[in-house]
Amino acid sequence: MGVAQVIIGVPREIAPGETRVALVPANVAALLKKHKIELLVEREAGLAAGYTDSEYQEAGATLTDRATVFSKADVVLQVQTPGSNHANGDQDMALLRAGQVLIGMMDPLANAKFATKLAETQISGLALELVPRITRAQAMDVLSSMAMLAGYKAVLMAASESNRMFPMNMTAAGTLNASRVFVMGAGVAGLQACATAKRLGAVVEAYDVRAAAREQILSVGAKPVELDLDTGTAEGSGGYAAAQGEDFLKRQRELMTEVIARMDVVITTAAVPGAKSPILVTEDMVKAMKPGAVIVDLAAERGGNCELTEAGQTVTKHGVTIVGPENVPATLAFHASQMFGKNMENLLNLLITREGTFELDFEDEIVRETVVAHQGDVPHARLRGLLGLP
Amino acid sequence: MGVAQVIIGVPREIAPGETRVALVPANVAALLKKHKIELLVEREAGLAAGYTDSEYQEAGATLTDRATVFSKADVVLQVQTPGSNHANGDQDMALLRAGQVLIGMMDPLANAKFATKLAETQISGLALELVPRITRAQAMDVLSSMAMLAGYKAVLMAASESNRMFPMNMTAAGTLNASRVFVMGAGVAGLQACATAKRLGAVVEAYDVRAAAREQILSVGAKPVELDLDTGTAEGSGGYAAAQGEDFLKRQRELMTEVIARMDVVITTAAVPGAKSPILVTEDMVKAMKPGAVIVDLAAERGGNCELTEAGQTVTKHGVTIVGPENVPATLAFHASQMFGKNMENLLNLLITREGTFELDFEDEIVRETVVAHQGDVPHARLRGLLGLP
Repeated sequence: MGVAQVIIGVPREIAPGETRVALVPANVAALLKKHKIELLVEREAGLAAGYTDSEYQEAGATLTDRATVFSKADVVLQVQTPGSNHANGDQDMALLRAGQVLIGMMDPLANAKFATKLAETQISGLALELVPRITRAQAMDVLSSMAMLAGYKAVLMAASESNRMFPMNMTAAGTLNASRVFVMGAGVAGLQACATAKRLGAVVEAYDVRAAAREQILSVGAKPVELDLDTGTAEGSGGYAAAQGEDFLKRQRELMTEVIARMDVVITTAAVPGAKSPILVTEDMVKAMKPGAVIVDLAAERGGNCELTEAGQTVTKHGVTIVGPENVPATLAFHASQMFGKNMENLLNLLITREGTFELDFEDEIVRETVVAHQGDVPHARLRGLLGLP
Repeated sequence: MGVAQVIIGVPREIAPGETRVALVPANVAALLKKHKIELLVEREAGLAAGYTDSEYQEAGATLTDRATVFSKADVVLQVQTPGSNHANGDQDMALLRAGQVLIGMMDPLANAKFATKLAETQISGLALELVPRITRAQAMDVLSSMAMLAGYKAVLMAASESNRMFPMNMTAAGTLNASRVFVMGAGVAGLQACATAKRLGAVVEAYDVRAAAREQILSVGAKPVELDLDTGTAEGSGGYAAAQGEDFLKRQRELMTEVIARMDVVITTAAVPGAKSPILVTEDMVKAMKPGAVIVDLAAERGGNCELTEAGQTVTKHGVTIVGPENVPATLAFHASQMFGKNMENLLNLLITREGTFELDFEDEIVRETVVAHQGDVPHARLRGLLGLP
């Protein structure tokens, strides 16, 4: 009665291995308290993440079947939309309909065509990977929250594979040396990996190409690795820049090989959204490592930071165990869903009015940067570029 | 040429999944420096633990083949002798010969008949599990050193299976609560589990039937769980003791169920050498746990402390993941071999003279408690009892 109240739907995730859920009961309760909306949740949607149907019900959600969630919802929330779910996302695509809004991960930069597909189907799409990295949007940034979890879990994976304990131990049977852990890339995942390895008692060093990372590395108790490179020369300009760049990179690889050879564990975290991961650890570097050393490559899904990584596999090459995990946050489904849901809740608070109407205000940078399809069009400047649209 | 020098042999371990080695290169070097002995090591004996043939060679060992190690050695050192290796230990048994000394793990209390077998074959056997828990023998105590590793690894296994992070996290996407970890049994493994879970940021509680454990639990940063039991009544004597004991145990189970229901992770460590493990976690207690909770049962090899544990498996029952690992120290083969080797080195220092002769001095408590077979006989009082010998 009165204004049309938006119906929000949360289906169970169907991508293989996807244990997360787009909203947890606490988000349901908070959203229903704030907005005049209806919230449909597919039965058992949260079960794999440790949230029961009765908890959703107590929070005020209406539990129903999958078909009803997709047919009745005005806004469908997913962790993995068909854009990022290449395994069986077409099953979801068949259930979505014109006029709906789809919010979730869409892998937009690697799979820009999905935006076209949504536009053609008259579906509005908001890709969470595109939430801008501005202060106001920090609380909506799933890449950051999931990277934090991945950095933590990478250390557990490394410690589980390692044939050594991480902490130093002085025992009746002699002293066990602490493990040496090297973290490559000091973004959110890398810094969390540093902090976790440090917690576990390892001696932790880290490297990042950004000079500003130094302070952050120190702040989590790790030692910044500085390569003895003549940056003065490398920074020279003019016609020689490229050739010098090659020398610089060769010298960088040599020095990095020396660093890596000392390590018991290397964790690489240089994943570039939508792009192939840069190779940081070459086969020659792996050959220089100790037998029994471990590499955990958090960039495995995009080809890996190590030349020998196999996505989704744990392999042993040249005596080194190389772990190439996929969808690491899903292994921490309870907390991952809590954070993902909170990110989603914060975004929805921006898009839904108190009266329960859904509005996309393109004056808002967050909306402009996140919407990949709307009213039959792809309005997003960067995606238009990728798609070759004018 | 002077006195006969004892030849010590270290074969590669053949038990499935056994990655440890009985001596590491550092032990070889130390033993050769101290005693006039010869040391034969089977090629690649240390490889699975991260120790290379060239390291053994540099330490002074003679590398050779398996048959030569067994035929030439006076003293054979193993991690798992045929006494504890039920899978393919008979292959080793066929290579051992009369007059040899065999030192290693033999599972003597559960497999007392192995002592008879050794005696019949005129082999002298020293079971490392029987090293007495006296101060002087602490440096030879493999059960303690391996328990320490198991306690550490149990926490990694639990954290890896858990759908939650262990440390508390305050993030832009809200606060993640620290995981609650409960350690049952505060021996070496349990205390190390407490310390490791604490390091990782969990809120740790522990329980042990021994009152003396309270201080030790506090010393590793965990909170001792005290059950509100009327111990006064339970400690009553006379004809009512049994009936009261039953009440006591029932009440204990009830209170324990309440404690366990609050936990995200339960680690059980009540393994009794040679005996079936006591059940600490019943199926009813598992049913009371949160969905997604994790139990790691370090007593899995002996039937488990949890009623639902399956040895060597990770199973999910009533929404709870139950990990029943076998031979946990072998997963930390580098450090496990370092400690095992040091324990072995310390024992050998007691048994070998500077001149390189091997002597069993039955006046020494350590020798008396450890030797299970010698000169065709089973001299060990406790084993004689188990075997029904006079």
